[in-house]
Amino acid sequence: MPELHTDLPVFCEVDGHYDPTPFFLTRDMFGGMPFEVAGGPIAHLVGRPVADLHIHECPEVYLLVSPTPGGARIEVTVGDEVVEVASPATVHIPARTPHRFVTLEAEQGSYCFGLLVTSA
Amino acid sequence: MPELHTDLPVFCEVDGHYDPTPFFLTRDMFGGMPFEVAGGPIAHLVGRPVADLHIHECPEVYLLVSPTPGGARIEVTVGDEVVEVASPATVHIPARTPHRFVTLEAEQGSYCFGLLVTSA
Repeated sequence: MPELHTDLPVFCEVDGHYDPTPFFLTRDMFGGMPFEVAGGPIAHLVGRPVADLHIHECPEVYLLVSPTPGGARIEVTVGDEVVEVASPATVHIPARTPHRFVTLEAEQGSYCFGLLVTSA
Repeated sequence: MPELHTDLPVFCEVDGHYDPTPFFLTRDMFGGMPFEVAGGPIAHLVGRPVADLHIHECPEVYLLVSPTPGGARIEVTVGDEVVEVASPATVHIPARTPHRFVTLEAEQGSYCFGLLVTSA
């Protein structure tokens, strides 16, 4: 039987986030991968940030996708810069860099995943 | 300006795949992450496998998501085992293990990502 997890997402506390954060891959799955996967659908998060400006000890890559190109737009704050990013996109958040994102628009079937580089 | 990529996906040849494979994160982005992200939407891939049974040199984690739980189902072959997996799910494919998947069902907004562990 392949190793698999279906009881997902699991909710974990993340420093700086308002609520427990959904994870699809955590460090205790599959013997420990060098990254974790948080996030999920965002259509219900328009105008509702999940965290204030905060830092992680590890680098992170956001992955933003939607059924239609441009179907999701997020406002990403990284350090003292603010940029609007449209799907599909990946954004690099260096370790210990204050960041925050706000969903501006997200059609059904849009996702934003945070890929946390735990090996770094 | 945060580091970001929006000209996505990029298409790369992957051993064992029939056609160039869409990637959202490759080893040459962001100074090199310990993983790559391939795949994407799968609603158009029902009954159309993208590869025959094949191996990669690195471990891989599949991430299967859909707007509705159970809205996507894939048949995953790992070694000599076949299992049907419903969304949401993650599946571990160890390095050098023959694998293949076929999309059995996928509502609009379903995605399957292959997270390739390139650091291993």
